[in-house]
Amino acid sequence: MATLDFYFSPGACSLATHIALEETGAAFNPKPTYTRKGQTRTPEYLAMNPKGKVPMLVIDGKVLTENTAILSYLNRAYPTAKLLPTGDALKEAEALAFVAWCASGVHPVLSRFFGPQNFTDLPDSADNVKALATKANAANFAIIEKALSHGKDWLFGDWSVADGYIFVFFNWAKKLGIDVSAYPNYAKHFERMSQRPAVQRAMAREADALAAMDKAA
Amino acid sequence: MATLDFYFSPGACSLATHIALEETGAAFNPKPTYTRKGQTRTPEYLAMNPKGKVPMLVIDGKVLTENTAILSYLNRAYPTAKLLPTGDALKEAEALAFVAWCASGVHPVLSRFFGPQNFTDLPDSADNVKALATKANAANFAIIEKALSHGKDWLFGDWSVADGYIFVFFNWAKKLGIDVSAYPNYAKHFERMSQRPAVQRAMAREADALAAMDKAA
Repeated sequence: MATLDFYFSPGACSLATHIALEETGAAFNPKPTYTRKGQTRTPEYLAMNPKGKVPMLVIDGKVLTENTAILSYLNRAYPTAKLLPTGDALKEAEALAFVAWCASGVHPVLSRFFGPQNFTDLPDSADNVKALATKANAANFAIIEKALSHGKDWLFGDWSVADGYIFVFFNWAKKLGIDVSAYPNYAKHFERMSQRPAVQRAMAREADALAAMDKAA
Repeated sequence: MATLDFYFSPGACSLATHIALEETGAAFNPKPTYTRKGQTRTPEYLAMNPKGKVPMLVIDGKVLTENTAILSYLNRAYPTAKLLPTGDALKEAEALAFVAWCASGVHPVLSRFFGPQNFTDLPDSADNVKALATKANAANFAIIEKALSHGKDWLFGDWSVADGYIFVFFNWAKKLGIDVSAYPNYAKHFERMSQRPAVQRAMAREADALAAMDKAA
């Protein structure tokens, strides 16, 4: 059994990997690392991951980053967990494409809400940045909504890590106050996800880590 | 042999897949699709790919999108081309993580240069958006530069599709007039890439497609 050290920041996109780890049933060492506290920007952290981001999974001392690569790796390392569709390389690739789009297409738009000042620091520009992000995000959420239509419980037949990833974004949308009324299937998916024991364990651990951080603050 | 229809826009990030396809030696049908002409936003294209983006690879009629997923798929479908490190799942995942970061971390920053008005449309804001993007891009390029230090020809020992992906960004940086003087190893990598026959074939085809578009305009 590999030793797994899992670096995550409570509520961040690392939740997609956190859920997948819980779905595998593998033992791992949770390493809460608070982006808000600059803990992904320390010399020690940057020596492991020069990008200064989460998630990071250290597997027997070897560093792996990026949700897409970690989820693809975990799928192969824990085949019985069926993190991605099995038995057909193209079907697996289609689900991985959805995961990759979450990372490259959906997340970067939502980042504009969290840090509008990273895109322009002109005076009083934040509302304008968020207004344009709202339009771009609506286009992305509409694609997710459509992918969940026709009474589908999960994006690709059985549950997959793509479902775990979009759960992160709906969670963010609720926190950010984004209007989600146009996405009823996505909302039902969020409730369905919330019932999964693996999701509940990941969410509880992240909530505990957040409470510990706030207490230490 | 699978029938491969490859949709690309000349000069776009689809070049990363274009290079990989040429490296496999597989026969494919090039389908130039001009983002600038709105050809990825037609009803026909959106029916295949609701994201309205390139690259898109249609494999025996089945649609696959996202460079990261396409490159991972091609690596498995054409193992003799060695598009990613072989024989060690973790080494392959590390290279895939670099590819995923290209898509989720590097490309979105460069998109701000191509379309600053997508991030804020306040008057006279484009230069400010580009100034912040310049800082963010420098941090990314510094990571690439460091990954190519110590006399390495390629990012992961042998050539991999990660090398093809970063070639796209250096090409963009030159076109955008971004100062690349701080990245001598990256510049040498670009020259090294430019010597590869597969890269030359892909670049020639994209130049031809661009000339045909400009002529039709």
